[in-house]
Amino acid sequence: MRVALDLLGGDHAPDAVIDGALLAVDRDPTVEVILVGPPDVAAELLAARGATLAVVPASESVAMDEQPVRGVRTKRDATVRTIHRLVREGAADAAVSVGPTGAVLAGAVLTLGRLTSRPAVAVVVPTAGGPVVLLDAGATSEGTPEQLVAFAVLGSAYAEVLGVRQPRVGLLNVGAEPGKGDQLRKAAFALLEQAPVRFVGNVEGHDVPHGGPADVVVTDGFTGNVLLKAVEAASARSDLPRSALLLGVAGVSVVGHGAARADDVAACVLHAAELARQGLLPRLREVLSTREEAS
Amino acid sequence: MRVALDLLGGDHAPDAVIDGALLAVDRDPTVEVILVGPPDVAAELLAARGATLAVVPASESVAMDEQPVRGVRTKRDATVRTIHRLVREGAADAAVSVGPTGAVLAGAVLTLGRLTSRPAVAVVVPTAGGPVVLLDAGATSEGTPEQLVAFAVLGSAYAEVLGVRQPRVGLLNVGAEPGKGDQLRKAAFALLEQAPVRFVGNVEGHDVPHGGPADVVVTDGFTGNVLLKAVEAASARSDLPRSALLLGVAGVSVVGHGAARADDVAACVLHAAELARQGLLPRLREVLSTREEAS
Repeated sequence: MRVALDLLGGDHAPDAVIDGALLAVDRDPTVEVILVGPPDVAAELLAARGATLAVVPASESVAMDEQPVRGVRTKRDATVRTIHRLVREGAADAAVSVGPTGAVLAGAVLTLGRLTSRPAVAVVVPTAGGPVVLLDAGATSEGTPEQLVAFAVLGSAYAEVLGVRQPRVGLLNVGAEPGKGDQLRKAAFALLEQAPVRFVGNVEGHDVPHGGPADVVVTDGFTGNVLLKAVEAASARSDLPRSALLLGVAGVSVVGHGAARADDVAACVLHAAELARQGLLPRLREVLSTREEAS
Repeated sequence: MRVALDLLGGDHAPDAVIDGALLAVDRDPTVEVILVGPPDVAAELLAARGATLAVVPASESVAMDEQPVRGVRTKRDATVRTIHRLVREGAADAAVSVGPTGAVLAGAVLTLGRLTSRPAVAVVVPTAGGPVVLLDAGATSEGTPEQLVAFAVLGSAYAEVLGVRQPRVGLLNVGAEPGKGDQLRKAAFALLEQAPVRFVGNVEGHDVPHGGPADVVVTDGFTGNVLLKAVEAASARSDLPRSALLLGVAGVSVVGHGAARADDVAACVLHAAELARQGLLPRLREVLSTREEAS
């Protein structure tokens, strides 16, 4: 499995990125990392470590405080475009970046295109009751009822690929009873009852770390992002995910925290390689096409 | 300190409520509990425990799946009205319920009235960097920029009463940089820069359990509720709050989880007594009047 890795993304780039790449190939020698960044920077870092990795040139990065879509559109030589171009061209099996999620998503959508109208950031939270797929964790900032339904279909297909049969889909809300929540939740609840997913009703904040009523938890990107960061910080558990999947783009693309250290970057690379190995994309397409027929 | 306690609120009422009341008075003999509920139920429970507590009659409760404001309006003999009536009449110093938050809030607003146009549910999260006041944790379901500013003023005043000097106020968002978030956050950010509070900008989900940049974290009631429940579930810490304050009503009113057991009910009663003892209400009024002059 060949993973295209953004050398310029993240607070601790490029050192943490290159160290993460070397850790990943050390842990799984079947994984090949293609560094995407300025060749002189890559060469110097590799020489200092006495290591060899493939390098594909790209010179621009998108800053945290930059408007992501505009930044990516204007920077044709951005690393977040090139990692996805390699996937599109078949030169890599998956793309990884720990740069700003919005920029990585923009790079993925512009370069790979979409599987569905509204891609989402999906995170798999391990719980005692099995994995919980939480989405959207930050791809969109304004939620609409139709988007939440699209996330339900997408998350459901992802859970099936992960091995969950007939995944139960829950709507994140402030109470379990129907009729709870704001206008967005009330409208989404009504639509979800008609959607081609196994909708089990409202779930609450505690159902994400605890698991239980739902295998897939759908929410708007604002709430999902806030929730995920809070759970990560509150939790003493070491098994929390260090990588998220851009779900709904036409390729395997994994994002990590901007604060990622080498170990986190390695986890992202190995996660991306594993998803590509499992045939995530063809399997997602297959499940989604079945859903479309059902709807 | 006399605490009026809703005998009918919560999943484990009335047993967990009466046991919690007895635990509280045992732990702090200066606290007096006034049970508010059906006298025959109270008498039977007290007799079975060989205990004596004051009882004030009220026969109706508001169910979890009931529309709270309508429920409280139509039920004139609801316990969530009577606990607050006792506070209004000076027969109790504080009110406590572990019934549905919406119903308790409706009872407080209808009976005690408001200090500010928009009351909130405020929770104090202990962190290494000191207490973090999070609000709104569920009083409102739709957020507006003006409400978030009102929460900032209210939370700031509460933090001052808790002993924080010049409390720093943060806006819960998906990134630290200005310009992040949905329309609500963008509009609130601009208003908060002009508000009579010490606004320090955006904070993120992890800043609630970790503390650090802000003493007061403001958000809409939907996000706050989801965040709080997730943090409670994810955390292995035993020092998380088991009670929340209805902030912005003209009296001390504390709510707990519907799932509260006796020990949680006792914590709510002792928290309410402590807030009343500290003179929460006159001190809040004083701080708020200063803010109004400043704005």
